[in-house]
Amino acid sequence: MPQPVATTEKQVTGDLYAEVRTFYARQMRRVDALDIEGFADTFTEDGEVVHSGGERQRGRAEMIAGMRASLPRYRDICVRHWFEHLLIEADPENTGDEDTVRTSYYTLVALTDREGKVSFQPTFTVEDELVRRDGRLLTRSRVIHRDRPAER
Amino acid sequence: MPQPVATTEKQVTGDLYAEVRTFYARQMRRVDALDIEGFADTFTEDGEVVHSGGERQRGRAEMIAGMRASLPRYRDICVRHWFEHLLIEADPENTGDEDTVRTSYYTLVALTDREGKVSFQPTFTVEDELVRRDGRLLTRSRVIHRDRPAER
Amino acid sequence: MPQPVATTEKQVTGDLYAEVRTFYARQMRRVDALDIEGFADTFTEDGEVVHSGGERQRGRAEMIAGMRASLPRYRDICVRHWFEHLLIEADPENTGDEDTVRTSYYTLVALTDREGKVSFQPTFTVEDELVRRDGRLLTRSRVIHRDRPAER
Repeated sequence: MPQPVATTEKQVTGDLYAEVRTFYARQMRRVDALDIEGFADTFTEDGEVVHSGGERQRGRAEMIAGMRASLPRYRDICVRHWFEHLLIEADPENTGDEDTVRTSYYTLVALTDREGKVSFQPTFTVEDELVRRDGRLLTRSRVIHRDRPAER
Repeated sequence: MPQPVATTEKQVTGDLYAEVRTFYARQMRRVDALDIEGFADTFTEDGEVVHSGGERQRGRAEMIAGMRASLPRYRDICVRHWFEHLLIEADPENTGDEDTVRTSYYTLVALTDREGKVSFQPTFTVEDELVRRDGRLLTRSRVIHRDRPAER
Repeated sequence: MPQPVATTEKQVTGDLYAEVRTFYARQMRRVDALDIEGFADTFTEDGEVVHSGGERQRGRAEMIAGMRASLPRYRDICVRHWFEHLLIEADPENTGDEDTVRTSYYTLVALTDREGKVSFQPTFTVEDELVRRDGRLLTRSRVIHRDRPAER
């Protein structure tokens, strides 16, 4: 297979890095506050989430219904999502579309109960496609992968 | 209630993002090294901290005294503060004062004992007001909130 | 001892901040995937790692051999490295060499077993020297320090 011509990855600018981190800081505050409608509003109207078990939610209404169903689980638990090792690629298709951004990141979810005891969910790796509309980022697609021991 | 006119949040620049992250990287190295005086020096002379229990420390001298009193707790423990989902707003009052910066972030404190066993304190969310003096950021005010299960 | 003339630290730009974070995001994806050769490729040919116990690996071949020997430990474990409080200094010797970058950061390693149980290794602080070759960062030197309770 011939080598691709471009051997250097596109650099993400500092401004885009800050913009994407800020987007996630706001989005995660909403999900961690169980602000379901506010969280859904950070997705496009036709936004899609594929969960690690294969379940797929299409559109804000399905997302809201899915989250509402799992609310009782969080009654006595404080949830905080941690992200790490964010990769950002603007214009991933090289079509000059700087308003489409692909990202990938690690997540770790910390759960604190009413007594202050902290536990953690297994780690995940997430791949998002973001779009910028009216100067504001939204998630169009999210695919969540449960981390598994690497095969070697 | 009328909608505010400005619906788009001000974007944080990449340079400011890096500056604030670097400030916290230095400030947390000092607190985690139990360098109490060095930590106090990252606050303004009249800096104020409101702890999650409501206790308020005003000025570096009070901060130093408070931290000194809690030193014995850390004799056999290595403390590391982790931050996430930093939000940064320069000139929060829209007065053209770019040397005032408001921030908010999650914290998670990892404690490692002499045997290498790791435990975690409950998570917190912190709101800071930073000021830039002679080109260098300092914390003027910090309010620490213990995270609680969300009410829905 | 006379005070140094420059009392203000050099500011890291947003672009460099994003470049370095992106470098580590790629490097850690490789080590966490147990992609040993791919991980070694993120070091210079003569790259060096000094582990917290004092063991030193010189060059990619030694690194690969060392990692291969420890692979069985990770057979049923999913490893994820978390970084925090990254400090970045370009041109650390003030010789105008912007292609040399010194960094320092906290690490926390999360281990998830096949049942989804999460545990953590003790925290470390790492000091790296990176070099930019053909527009791409590589690690030339890494020194890993196990965090210990601070002496006061």
